[in-house]
Amino acid sequence: MADPRFHSRVGPFTLSELAGLIDATVGTDSDPNMRLIDVAPLESAGAEQLSFLDNKKYITAFESSNAAACIVAPHLAARAPEGMALLLSNEPYKAYALAAQEFYPTVHPEPGVAETSFIDKTAKVDESCRVEHGAVIGSKAVIGKNCLIEANVVIGPEVIIGDGTMIGACSSLSYCMIGSRTFIYPGVRVGQGGFGFFPDPSGHVKVPQLGRVIVGDNVEIGANSTIDRGSGPDTIIGQGCWLDNLVQIAHNVILGRGCVIAAMAGVSGSAKIGDFVFIAGQVGIVGHTVVGSGVKIAGQSGVTKDVPPGMTVGGTPAVAIMDWHRQSVALARLINKDK
Amino acid sequence: MADPRFHSRVGPFTLSELAGLIDATVGTDSDPNMRLIDVAPLESAGAEQLSFLDNKKYITAFESSNAAACIVAPHLAARAPEGMALLLSNEPYKAYALAAQEFYPTVHPEPGVAETSFIDKTAKVDESCRVEHGAVIGSKAVIGKNCLIEANVVIGPEVIIGDGTMIGACSSLSYCMIGSRTFIYPGVRVGQGGFGFFPDPSGHVKVPQLGRVIVGDNVEIGANSTIDRGSGPDTIIGQGCWLDNLVQIAHNVILGRGCVIAAMAGVSGSAKIGDFVFIAGQVGIVGHTVVGSGVKIAGQSGVTKDVPPGMTVGGTPAVAIMDWHRQSVALARLINKDK
Amino acid sequence: MADPRFHSRVGPFTLSELAGLIDATVGTDSDPNMRLIDVAPLESAGAEQLSFLDNKKYITAFESSNAAACIVAPHLAARAPEGMALLLSNEPYKAYALAAQEFYPTVHPEPGVAETSFIDKTAKVDESCRVEHGAVIGSKAVIGKNCLIEANVVIGPEVIIGDGTMIGACSSLSYCMIGSRTFIYPGVRVGQGGFGFFPDPSGHVKVPQLGRVIVGDNVEIGANSTIDRGSGPDTIIGQGCWLDNLVQIAHNVILGRGCVIAAMAGVSGSAKIGDFVFIAGQVGIVGHTVVGSGVKIAGQSGVTKDVPPGMTVGGTPAVAIMDWHRQSVALARLINKDK
Repeated sequence: MADPRFHSRVGPFTLSELAGLIDATVGTDSDPNMRLIDVAPLESAGAEQLSFLDNKKYITAFESSNAAACIVAPHLAARAPEGMALLLSNEPYKAYALAAQEFYPTVHPEPGVAETSFIDKTAKVDESCRVEHGAVIGSKAVIGKNCLIEANVVIGPEVIIGDGTMIGACSSLSYCMIGSRTFIYPGVRVGQGGFGFFPDPSGHVKVPQLGRVIVGDNVEIGANSTIDRGSGPDTIIGQGCWLDNLVQIAHNVILGRGCVIAAMAGVSGSAKIGDFVFIAGQVGIVGHTVVGSGVKIAGQSGVTKDVPPGMTVGGTPAVAIMDWHRQSVALARLINKDK
Repeated sequence: MADPRFHSRVGPFTLSELAGLIDATVGTDSDPNMRLIDVAPLESAGAEQLSFLDNKKYITAFESSNAAACIVAPHLAARAPEGMALLLSNEPYKAYALAAQEFYPTVHPEPGVAETSFIDKTAKVDESCRVEHGAVIGSKAVIGKNCLIEANVVIGPEVIIGDGTMIGACSSLSYCMIGSRTFIYPGVRVGQGGFGFFPDPSGHVKVPQLGRVIVGDNVEIGANSTIDRGSGPDTIIGQGCWLDNLVQIAHNVILGRGCVIAAMAGVSGSAKIGDFVFIAGQVGIVGHTVVGSGVKIAGQSGVTKDVPPGMTVGGTPAVAIMDWHRQSVALARLINKDK
Repeated sequence: MADPRFHSRVGPFTLSELAGLIDATVGTDSDPNMRLIDVAPLESAGAEQLSFLDNKKYITAFESSNAAACIVAPHLAARAPEGMALLLSNEPYKAYALAAQEFYPTVHPEPGVAETSFIDKTAKVDESCRVEHGAVIGSKAVIGKNCLIEANVVIGPEVIIGDGTMIGACSSLSYCMIGSRTFIYPGVRVGQGGFGFFPDPSGHVKVPQLGRVIVGDNVEIGANSTIDRGSGPDTIIGQGCWLDNLVQIAHNVILGRGCVIAAMAGVSGSAKIGDFVFIAGQVGIVGHTVVGSGVKIAGQSGVTKDVPPGMTVGGTPAVAIMDWHRQSVALARLINKDK
C-alpha cells in the first residue's frame, strides 16, 4: 500500500465498477460486488486488493498470490489460484494503469498565488492556477487554466502555457509555447539558445538563435532535460511525446506525435523524428538525420544516417537490429577462435 | 521571420552596408542600394530578405529561392536565380552569422536589482548590472559591469565575475572565478566539490576538494552542464570554449582555448585538453589523459589514452578515425559471410 | 596552498600529531616535532607542507619534491629525497584524505533561517539548521539537526531528512526520506514520478507512481543527478553510496551499500544492484537486471543481463572484461589483415 503521507487514495470500488472503468470483463466465477480498496504487486497484495499479471515471467507469483482480485489476459485465467477474483483484459498493464488512476487520482492543486512569487503585472495567469513560492513569471506571459507552477520556477517573457499543465520545481522556460495537460518535471530547461556558431580560430562566431520551442499537448518532459530553441525554424515536440530524465533536444529538432525517448538520449540539431518513434536510453542521433515513423532504436546506439519508417536499429553506427546482434555474436566467436 | 514577441529586429540595411559589416563583396550585377529588412532560410526567404548558401546539399533550394539577396561563395554565384542580389564571401555561414547579429543585436538588459533578490551587503555588484527576481549573491562576491544575473540564480561567497557576463536562470556558482562576456546557460552547476574519495569497505573516505573553477572570457556553458572545482589544483576552462548542454567537466580538468564540446560529453578528472579540440556528443574521456591541440573526437567515442595533436579519433576504445570506420566495415563483412 | 577566500585552514600540526590522526607511522629519521601547516601536491609543496605519493607514476616527482614531509608506503620510503620527513602508511591516499580533512575541516554552517526563505508552519526544522535564501520547505516536512539547506532549494510536503545532511542550491526533493550526513549537490532532482506508461497509439497511458525514494546515511549525490520515485515499490539508495554528477536512477532501482557510480551513468527501472558495485562513467544498465555485489563495470558499457557477484565487465552488450579487451584486439587485427 502506498505511503498515505505522499499518496491520497480514494475508493472503495466494486469489481464490476472497476471493470467498467478500465474496460475489462468480470471473470465468470468472480463476485461482481466484491469490494476493492487498493492496488498492489502480486507478491504483497492481499484481502481487498487488486493486482495484475502482464509478464509471463511472473506467472508463478500469480499462481501463489493472495490478491483478492487480479487483472489478467483471458488465456491465462485458468492459472489463477482458487478463490481469486478476475478482471479479464487483453491489455492487463493498461487496465492496471487505469485502475491505479482510479484509486490514486491526480490531485488538482488548490488555486492560489504564493506571496513570495513574482508575477509581472503584464502577465496573465488564470485565477484557477496555483503559483508556488519563489516562482517568477515574466512580462506578457500567458498561463491557462488549472496550471501548477511549482516553487522557484522561472517563466520568461511572452511564454504561453495551455490548460492543466504542470511546470516542476526549479525549471526554466523561455522563448516557448507549451500545450495543455503537459507535464514538465523539475529542473527542465526549455528555450535557451541552441549550440550555433561558426568555428573560428580567432573566436567562434555566435549565430543568433531566432526560433522558439513549441511543445504540444499531453507531453511529458523528464527531470533536468534540456530543449533548445530553434536557430530560425522552431524546435517542435509533438503531442503525446514522453521524454525521460536528462534528455537533450537540440535546436530545430522536430519530434512527431507520441515519441518515447528514454533517459540520457540526445537528438542533435535539425534531426526530424517521425511519429511513435521509440528511442532507448543513451542513444545519440546525429544532426540533420531523418528517422521514420515507428522506428525503434536500441540503447546506446549512435544513429548516423537516415532510418526508414518501421525499422529497428542498434549499435554505433546503428544498423538493422539483427545485424547488430549478429555482429556481437561474430565478435564473440572471433575471440573464441583466438583463445 | 522571427517571432517579434521573442526577438527584436533592427534595420533596414542596404546591401552595401551589410557587405561592409560582414566582410563580403557586393555581386557584380547586384544593386548596392537594395534595402534588406531581415534574414531568412532559402526556402522561405522573399522580398527584402537575405539568405545564405553554405552547404552544397542545399544548392537546389538556392537555385529556386525567392530571397531578394543571398550570401554565397564566389564559385557558386553563377548558380543564382535570375534577379537575386548577391553578397560574395568565402565563409558564407560566418557572414550569415554576422548579418543575423546586425538584424538581431544582443539586447543589453536594463540595469536594476529586483526587490525579491538578495545581495549580501559585503558583495559588490556594479550598478550597471541587472539582477533578477530570487537571485542570491553571497558575501564578498564581486560582479563586474553590465552583467545579467537571471532569476533564481545562486552565487556563492567570494565568487568573482567579469564584465558583460550572463548567468542563466536557476544556475548555481561557487568556488569560482568567471571571465568577461561569458554566457552560462540555465541550470548550470559550477564549483561544487569533485568526485574525490578513497574507496573503503568501512565507508568511502572523502578527499577535501581544495581548488576552484577558473572560467575564461568569451566562454559558453550549455544548460544543466556541471563543472566541479579542483581537488587542489584548479579546474580550468580556457577562453573561447563552447560547451553544449549536459556536459560534465570533472575536477582538475584543463581545457585549452576555443575547445568545442557537444552535448552529453564528459571529461574525467585531471584530463588535459589542448586548444581547439572538437569533442562530439556523448564522448567520454578517461581521467588523467592528455588530448593534444586540434584533436577531433567522433560522437560516443571513449578516449582511454593520450591522443597526439591534430589526430581525429573514434570508437570505444578510441582509435584513428579511419581505423574505426574500417572496423565497422570489417564487422559488417564478417556477418555477411555468416549469413 | 588553497585559496583562503574559499577554503579555511586550521593547524599547524606536528608530524607526530598527524601520524596519530591519520593512522600512519613517523619515519625513522624524521623529526616527530616538525611543524606542518598545509597539504600540497608533490610538485608545488615546500617548507612546512605535507604531500603524498600514491601512484608509482609520480615517483620521479617524489624524488625531486621539496615537500617538508610526505606520506608514502613503507617500501618506497628509501626513494625519498634527503631531508624529507616521512609518514608511513599502507594506504597513502586514504592517509592524505584524512590529513587534508584535518587542515581543512568541514565548516559547520551557522544556524539561522533566511528571511527570504519559506517554511510551511506545519514543517519541523530543527533550530540548529541553516536555511538559506529562497529555500522552500513544504507542509509537514521534518528536517533533523545541523542540516544545511542551501539557497533556492525546494523540499516538498512530508519529506524527512536526517541529521547533518546538506541539500545543495537549486535542488528539489519530494516523496522521499533522506538519511543523515548525506550530501546532495546542487541541482539534484529526487522523488519526481518515474517513466511509467502503457504505450498506446491513441495516447500513452500514465501509470501512477505510488512509491517513494529512500536515501541512506552517508550518501553523496552529484550535481544535476536525477532519482525517480518508485512506481509502487520504493527506489532505494543504500548507505554510503557515492553518485557523481548527471547520474540517472530510475524508479524501483535498489542500490546496495557503498556503490560508486561515476558521471553520466544510468540505471534503468527495477534493476537491483548489490553492495560495493563500481559503475564507471556513461554506463547504462538495462531495466530489471540484477548486478551482484562487488561487480565492476567499465566506462560506456551497456549491461543487458544479470552479472554475477565479483565479476568485471565491459562493452555493449557487456561481457567479461578480458573478452571485451580481446574483442578490441581481434577487431584491430581484422582490419590490419584488410590493409
